[in-house]
Amino acid sequence: MTKVAIIGVGMTKFGEYWEKSYRGLIQEAGVKAIRDAGVSGKDINAIYGGSMTPGLFVEQEHTSALMADYTGLSGIPATRVEAACASGGLALREAYLSIKSSEYDVVVAGGVEKMTDASTYSAIVALSGAGDQEWESFHGATFPALYALMARRHMLEYGTTEEQMAQVAVKNHHNGFLNPNAQFHSKITVKDVMNSGSVATPLKLLDCSPITDGAAAIVLASEKKAKEFTDKPVWIIGSGQASDTLALHDRKSLSRTDAAILAGKRAYEEAKVKPSDIDIAEVHDCFTIAEILAIEALGFCKIGEGGKLTEKGETALKGRIPVNTSGGLKAKGHPVGATGIAQAVEVALQLRGEADKRQVKNAKIGLTHNVGGSGATCAVHIFKND
Amino acid sequence: MTKVAIIGVGMTKFGEYWEKSYRGLIQEAGVKAIRDAGVSGKDINAIYGGSMTPGLFVEQEHTSALMADYTGLSGIPATRVEAACASGGLALREAYLSIKSSEYDVVVAGGVEKMTDASTYSAIVALSGAGDQEWESFHGATFPALYALMARRHMLEYGTTEEQMAQVAVKNHHNGFLNPNAQFHSKITVKDVMNSGSVATPLKLLDCSPITDGAAAIVLASEKKAKEFTDKPVWIIGSGQASDTLALHDRKSLSRTDAAILAGKRAYEEAKVKPSDIDIAEVHDCFTIAEILAIEALGFCKIGEGGKLTEKGETALKGRIPVNTSGGLKAKGHPVGATGIAQAVEVALQLRGEADKRQVKNAKIGLTHNVGGSGATCAVHIFKND
Repeated sequence: MTKVAIIGVGMTKFGEYWEKSYRGLIQEAGVKAIRDAGVSGKDINAIYGGSMTPGLFVEQEHTSALMADYTGLSGIPATRVEAACASGGLALREAYLSIKSSEYDVVVAGGVEKMTDASTYSAIVALSGAGDQEWESFHGATFPALYALMARRHMLEYGTTEEQMAQVAVKNHHNGFLNPNAQFHSKITVKDVMNSGSVATPLKLLDCSPITDGAAAIVLASEKKAKEFTDKPVWIIGSGQASDTLALHDRKSLSRTDAAILAGKRAYEEAKVKPSDIDIAEVHDCFTIAEILAIEALGFCKIGEGGKLTEKGETALKGRIPVNTSGGLKAKGHPVGATGIAQAVEVALQLRGEADKRQVKNAKIGLTHNVGGSGATCAVHIFKND
Repeated sequence: MTKVAIIGVGMTKFGEYWEKSYRGLIQEAGVKAIRDAGVSGKDINAIYGGSMTPGLFVEQEHTSALMADYTGLSGIPATRVEAACASGGLALREAYLSIKSSEYDVVVAGGVEKMTDASTYSAIVALSGAGDQEWESFHGATFPALYALMARRHMLEYGTTEEQMAQVAVKNHHNGFLNPNAQFHSKITVKDVMNSGSVATPLKLLDCSPITDGAAAIVLASEKKAKEFTDKPVWIIGSGQASDTLALHDRKSLSRTDAAILAGKRAYEEAKVKPSDIDIAEVHDCFTIAEILAIEALGFCKIGEGGKLTEKGETALKGRIPVNTSGGLKAKGHPVGATGIAQAVEVALQLRGEADKRQVKNAKIGLTHNVGGSGATCAVHIFKND
């Protein structure tokens, strides 16, 4: 069974684009990744594309064929994968498995979302679709509300504070400030977060990731092809995926993300590494509480201690385990279907030593953690440089 | 690399259900397939689910987690695949590749759509999303119109007649009459088709497949597991997928479906069989012209001769190469995301000798052909019994 490596990465700057289209974003990220890999069209065997809900955002489904078409690759197999905000992570995983199956040698995994074109109605339906329509969305439980419930429970059980959550946003804005592809380049303070307007108590505006347009793409290759095209392969050494109940109220616990724990366990086992071996991680901080839940689920600290770990600065750029060096969803932006791939772009740049002002010294092993909905889907990938 | 077999099949009756929900349809088909396979929950490693646009039809995305959740399998990896009306066929292919990659041993591939709950606005946006939003849908080119263009061109180039197209509908209603799971149980005549109201000239109401609710599921297993659970495995011996330009006007030809030709070629090569080896085929007859294009693309006759082949009765239940023994999309119904899996259900029943009144004698090798949009995605699978 072949090993699989990332041999090229590309992404658009994340932001609010009135002048760029869904397909334009795909082209831009796709072409950047293909050029970075040094492959040409004829080398590429297939595309997997993550996109959450282009039907509701831009009235376009069947985006797999669009991706092949608008990158000049019509003819090759092209497949869209969807799992809400984990769509990108699952596209990466399908691309990885397809190479392991020996079906393909070189595969592009992409992710894209154009969120700012939608009407308010469509945008609310679109994002609420990640939850349980019958038991949550229909009754008005939107995502800030669901994560607020998790935050409240975490505060109750473990004494996590609003200031600790705010510290996640402060850290991620600090990192985003150093990332030219990030949506926000504004440093913020705990006071800024605490004083920002309430969205769903205890979550405030600056606890929430933004609405974003953007795309990201990576080129994956089998061991043989990777060695042909690059001397800086970033190997995928572990891939884990898991699911949980769609509705929050059916979970065993509101203060723990079991799909992430399970996906992490599977990825760690395949990679034969432990949480303490991870040098950098990109985790799914759609809300600040989500990053705290993530670092606990991934074993960077004990369950319940994520707030304290953040407060101590251990997840900061120069901390023990830098988390979201890219700025994360909070500051880099969160074009939902693109996020899982953009996380892999950041880890690849770090492991290639090309992360510029946010470079973590001697980063050798990186991890991505991509979540769908309030935690019903999770994909964890572990990467290693040569 | 392991072989992969279908070891269980299940589907709901296709139709218009006011009393059943999207998730209810999933449960019904899933549980039938699991029971048919004789596996229990703990044996199942993953789910791949095809659904075209549940966001627009029932305001629910993230349906992969829903599938695992509502079949009692939360925890396992669950992935939704979308490629418009080829979503089911691609879910089947991803499930197949995932077993070949050695990641899983037993995988459920499902497909579902609940189309009749949508508002007219949502339904039009939903189905048009399979075409090119910027160049087709936005300007009013809905699917009957796009297929009408193909029909016109085929008539011009090859002398195909409206009566020959009508014959496709007559045949498929004949077969659907024998299928208890079909939406329509009404025999029709060429005259009925010719006298039905015009939808997009030359296509009339009875040239078009209906709006349908329904779900289908199959259980796939590695060779080792297949032998453990069944003595009637249906082996997948070939799987091919291809893409074409999303918009019709960018194609090399309007009277030929190149993605189907390419996907067929790839599947035939893997299976090491020729078109003349195929005993039965389920093809994507979303419109009657689509079946003619399909049987030509798959090599059952020369390009341009599909109308004549149909007229001669060679694709009828007792013809040389029975096509759409299930009734096809035309009479069995076309819940878009479920269709690709329902095609595999029919072929599996035929190859197991369990197709009752529509059983084709000595059927050993069967084929499915599942198309997305006006042909921008195609998946072809070839199956063989033991």
